[in-house]
Amino acid sequence: MTHSTDSYTLAKWLAAEFSNQAQAIENPPLYAHIQVSIRPLPRKLLTGYCLYLEQAYAFMLKKPYRTRVIHILEHKDSILIENYELHKKELFLGGTRDPLILNKISTEHLIKKEGCDMNVEWTGHSFVGTVVPGKSCKVVRNGKTTYLDNSFEVDQNKFISIDRGRDPETDELIWGSIAGPFHFSRIKSFENELIAT
Amino acid sequence: MTHSTDSYTLAKWLAAEFSNQAQAIENPPLYAHIQVSIRPLPRKLLTGYCLYLEQAYAFMLKKPYRTRVIHILEHKDSILIENYELHKKELFLGGTRDPLILNKISTEHLIKKEGCDMNVEWTGHSFVGTVVPGKSCKVVRNGKTTYLDNSFEVDQNKFISIDRGRDPETDELIWGSIAGPFHFSRIKSFENELIAT
Repeated sequence: MTHSTDSYTLAKWLAAEFSNQAQAIENPPLYAHIQVSIRPLPRKLLTGYCLYLEQAYAFMLKKPYRTRVIHILEHKDSILIENYELHKKELFLGGTRDPLILNKISTEHLIKKEGCDMNVEWTGHSFVGTVVPGKSCKVVRNGKTTYLDNSFEVDQNKFISIDRGRDPETDELIWGSIAGPFHFSRIKSFENELIAT
Repeated sequence: MTHSTDSYTLAKWLAAEFSNQAQAIENPPLYAHIQVSIRPLPRKLLTGYCLYLEQAYAFMLKKPYRTRVIHILEHKDSILIENYELHKKELFLGGTRDPLILNKISTEHLIKKEGCDMNVEWTGHSFVGTVVPGKSCKVVRNGKTTYLDNSFEVDQNKFISIDRGRDPETDELIWGSIAGPFHFSRIKSFENELIAT
């Protein structure tokens, strides 16, 4: 196994509670104060690693605006991340703070987000993930269809992520921050809950 | 007096606690959750209306990232707003929640922000304020000098505001949101504290 297929290390680095509070405080009022929590699923659902993600405004952690199951798998000579939405997602709210909740997630709850896989590459010190080409990960905002242009970088110390929506015809930026990506710090790690495959 | 010089109505509409919580919830994660509080100063400092402004992240109201005295005055056939920073501003933190604190502000605390006056126009149903032309309201962010390109609109129901920084040479947008302006709702009015001049 080389770094570029070391999905265990990637899962370990992503398995954490992340906050961008410092960034928000340093750059008012440009960044919302966000918390991203990514917790390993206690049940083995799919080959590789499955983690449950909740992304929320810090002022309403109990109502995350995004919940996902992310599936990290080795694919050819690199790593791929698949994204799943959850059927009956309201049943799993708060799961990042309560593994008993997560235990209820089974494969029948998983709805794959087609076109939204991410290719992950090893940079020498971090992993960088980027949505697959093809403009096929659609996001509708305010009635307008955009395609997701997102990426992240994670290493031992930080997690950086940027979500943007672009016009499918012109590639013009339709939503997202020009102030730049979210910079998260790890405020709690869940890596000890990961079971190496 | 015509609407375009009705500084009392403008002061009355601005004298409030405003929150954009609804906007943040509707558009995650694009908008920070902000509170803008503008409270009439109990002492008459200058001709016209003087109000104390605190702008803060909702998660840290006690540490506003911007404090100002705004001075609303009738000027020729329209309204002008002057902006002042406060000498020893830490003495006045929380003043929007405690008029006793505001009573301590005197003219010797006021430091005029040159080049940052705003021209205000009556639209027929609202007031729109725009920083005066000339690119002279400088803001340094991350070591880079930009000029402030801001504006607001206020009426009986809403308060909309956008702050952006542009490059003085190219006018390129350097900071600010492309998602659009902050949309605030009035959550408390201080208009009964205004003394008509």
